[in-house]
Amino acid sequence: MHSIQPAPIVLLTDFGYRDHYAGVIRGVIASIAPHAPVIDLTHGIPPQQVAAGALILAQSWRFFPPRTIFVAVVDPGVGTNRLPIAVATRAGARFVGPDNGLLWMAATAAQIKTIVQLKSARYRLPNPGSTFHGRDIFAPAAAWLARSVKLEALGPQLKTMVALEPRAGVRETAQSLTGHVIYVDGFGNLVTNLSREQVYRFAGRCREGRLTVKVGRYPRFGLYATYGEAPVGEPLALFGSFELLEIGVRDGRAAVHLRASAGTSVTVRMGK
Amino acid sequence: MHSIQPAPIVLLTDFGYRDHYAGVIRGVIASIAPHAPVIDLTHGIPPQQVAAGALILAQSWRFFPPRTIFVAVVDPGVGTNRLPIAVATRAGARFVGPDNGLLWMAATAAQIKTIVQLKSARYRLPNPGSTFHGRDIFAPAAAWLARSVKLEALGPQLKTMVALEPRAGVRETAQSLTGHVIYVDGFGNLVTNLSREQVYRFAGRCREGRLTVKVGRYPRFGLYATYGEAPVGEPLALFGSFELLEIGVRDGRAAVHLRASAGTSVTVRMGK
Amino acid sequence: MHSIQPAPIVLLTDFGYRDHYAGVIRGVIASIAPHAPVIDLTHGIPPQQVAAGALILAQSWRFFPPRTIFVAVVDPGVGTNRLPIAVATRAGARFVGPDNGLLWMAATAAQIKTIVQLKSARYRLPNPGSTFHGRDIFAPAAAWLARSVKLEALGPQLKTMVALEPRAGVRETAQSLTGHVIYVDGFGNLVTNLSREQVYRFAGRCREGRLTVKVGRYPRFGLYATYGEAPVGEPLALFGSFELLEIGVRDGRAAVHLRASAGTSVTVRMGK
Repeated sequence: MHSIQPAPIVLLTDFGYRDHYAGVIRGVIASIAPHAPVIDLTHGIPPQQVAAGALILAQSWRFFPPRTIFVAVVDPGVGTNRLPIAVATRAGARFVGPDNGLLWMAATAAQIKTIVQLKSARYRLPNPGSTFHGRDIFAPAAAWLARSVKLEALGPQLKTMVALEPRAGVRETAQSLTGHVIYVDGFGNLVTNLSREQVYRFAGRCREGRLTVKVGRYPRFGLYATYGEAPVGEPLALFGSFELLEIGVRDGRAAVHLRASAGTSVTVRMGK
Repeated sequence: MHSIQPAPIVLLTDFGYRDHYAGVIRGVIASIAPHAPVIDLTHGIPPQQVAAGALILAQSWRFFPPRTIFVAVVDPGVGTNRLPIAVATRAGARFVGPDNGLLWMAATAAQIKTIVQLKSARYRLPNPGSTFHGRDIFAPAAAWLARSVKLEALGPQLKTMVALEPRAGVRETAQSLTGHVIYVDGFGNLVTNLSREQVYRFAGRCREGRLTVKVGRYPRFGLYATYGEAPVGEPLALFGSFELLEIGVRDGRAAVHLRASAGTSVTVRMGK
Repeated sequence: MHSIQPAPIVLLTDFGYRDHYAGVIRGVIASIAPHAPVIDLTHGIPPQQVAAGALILAQSWRFFPPRTIFVAVVDPGVGTNRLPIAVATRAGARFVGPDNGLLWMAATAAQIKTIVQLKSARYRLPNPGSTFHGRDIFAPAAAWLARSVKLEALGPQLKTMVALEPRAGVRETAQSLTGHVIYVDGFGNLVTNLSREQVYRFAGRCREGRLTVKVGRYPRFGLYATYGEAPVGEPLALFGSFELLEIGVRDGRAAVHLRASAGTSVTVRMGK
C-alpha cells in the first residue's frame, strides 16, 4: 500500500529555536532528498557544549529506526582545521558532523564500521563558507546518504575519530562513588554521569544501609523509584529515563534548589 | 497519484524544546509507524500545568484531520498509580495520555466512545520505566493505532476517566461575570475561562451601557474587536482565536502590564 | 519508486514555541493538503519585528526547493485594513502573508510575477476571525496552492505590494561605511545590514590599511575569516552565513558584550 519509506534524517544541534539555521538545514535536505523524513531530535543543546550534545545523542540514537542518519552540529571549531566527518556503524545508524568528540559516544555504542572525511565537492553545496557547515557540508552529506549515495563516496576514509568520554571522571572508593552533573534538563533536573550499572555494582559491594546522594554542600537525600514518591519540594535521586542517576525536586527545579550546574560534584554512598 | 496518507499523530507536551524528550518520542513513532506524519502541536505547555494543557488540546483538536491521534503528556503523576489511557471519540479523533484530566475536555467535546487502559505489553516498549511513559507507553500506543491496531486491543476498557473542567470556576451575578486567567500565552496575552457565549448571554440580560473588564486591581478597560483598535500600550479585552475572552496590551505584554498570571481574577460588567 | 513529492510549505512566524498557534496552522494544512510536507523555518522571529522576519525570509528562501510555498506571519496589524496577499515569482517560490513589507525583500529577490489579495471565501476557513489570519486565511491559502489551486483563484490581482528595505539605511563616505544591527541571533551575534559586496566595494576604493569595525562606543576591532581565529572573549567581525557583516564574540554573546541591539550603529573603516 505504501512505498518504502527512506531512512529518516535526525537533527541534533545547539542552534536553538529563535533563528532560521535549523530551518535552512531542512531546506537544503528537502532540495536534495525531498522524500527523506526529517526529525528534530533537539536544537536545544546548550550553545557549544559538545559533551552535552554527545551525551544526548548517545542516549537517543537507539530509539530511532535502524538505518537513521543523524546530523549533529555542536561545533565551536567551525572554520578551523577540525574535520567534517561521517560514520557508518554495525548497528546501522549513520552519524554526520564535526570530528570534535560529539559523535564518538554514540558511534562507539553503535560499533564504528567506517569513518570518512566529508571532502567530495560533489556532495557539498557549491562554495561552502566557513561559518555554517551544517548547511553547506553536513546537511548535503546526510541528504545524499538518504538518496543511497555510499558513505565511502563522500570522501577519503579515516582510521580514527576524536574521542570524548564524559563518564571518564567517575571516582570509586570503598565508601563512595563520585561523578558529576553533565546536563541540566529543561525541568531543572540534574543528569549525572553515574550509570545505574555502576551504582548497582558499587551498592552490591556494600554490606548494609541505604544509598544516599550528596550534591555539592546540600544535605544528603535518598534514592527513590519515581518522582511521585518524594515529598513536594524535596530533592530526590532516581535513575532517569536514560539509565543515568538523575536528581530532581518534586514540583521544583533541582538546579535552582541545589545550586548545581554542569560539573557540580555528585557523591553516592551507603547510609547518612 | 498519492498513496492514502495515514492519520497524523499530533504531540502536545510540557517537555519544552531544550531537551531530547520530544525527539525521542518521534524516534519511537518512526520505528513503529514510519509512514505516520507527526505534527508538534506544542511542547511548550508550562511544566506540569495539566489545566493549561487540557485547554490547549480542547481548543486545538478541531483544526486537525478527523482521524488524528493526539498524544498529550503533561504528567506530574508519572510513575504513580494514575492510569495510562487511550480514548476513541464519535468525532473520529483519538486521544492518548495519562488519566489525570488532561484529555477530558477535548475527549468530551469530541464525544467519548471508548476508553481503554494501556496495559497490553505487546503495544509498549519492552520494560517500560517509571519516568518516561511518553516514550515507553504513549508513543508506541499512538504508533500502533496509526498502523490500524484497534483501540480495544491496547488494553481493558474503562467506564470513566478523570474529569477536569476549568470553566467550573465562573461566577455570575446580575451585575457581573467573574472568571480567571487560565493561560498566559507567549505574547503575554491573558486567556481566560470566559467564553464568548457566556459573555454574550450575560450582556444580553443587561439593559444598557458598554461591557468593561477588570483584571485584578487595574482600572477597568473596554472590549474591542481587534488588537489594532486599542491605543498602543493600553490594555484591551477581545475574544481571541479560540472564542475565549483574552486580555492583551497593544505592542506590550499584558501579563507584565497587569501583573497577572494563571488564576488572576477577571470580571466583566456593564459600564465603568 | 516514489510518488512525486508536492512542494513543501515552509512556515516563518513570530508565534514562538510556547503556544499552540504554529501547531494549529499545521493542523489546518494537514486537513486540506495531507500530502504536503510542512517545514518550520522558524517561529522565533522577535514578536512583531517585521523587518527581522523580512530579512530572515529573504536570506533563507533560496535554500528550499524551487516551488516552495512560504507562509510568513509577523503581523502586528492583524484585524486592521492591511491586506492578506499571495505572491508568485519567476524563481518559482510563492509567498503568502500580510502585506506589511514582510514578504517584499524575498519576493523581489525571487522576481515578483503576480500578486493577489486573499479574498476568495472558498479558500479560507469559514468565518475567519480578526486575530488569527495565520490559521484562518494564510494556512488555507498555502494548502490550496499545494493542492495545485492557481494563485489567481485566491482573489483579485494587485499591482503593488508594501515595500520594506532594511538596507536603505546605509551611509557611505570616502572614509567609512555605516549601517546598523538588524537582527540579534540566538547566539547573541549581531547581524548587520552591510553586505559583503558593499563592504568589498568600499574596501576596494581605499588605498591602504586593514578594515576595522566599530559598534556603538566600543573600541574598534578587526575583520576575520572565521570565529576560531579571534581570541576567546574578544569581539570580531566576519561575513556570516548569509553574506552580511556579523559581529560575534568568541565563546560569548556579542549583544551583551557590546551592549548592542537592533538599530545599534555599526561603522566599517580602514585602519584604527
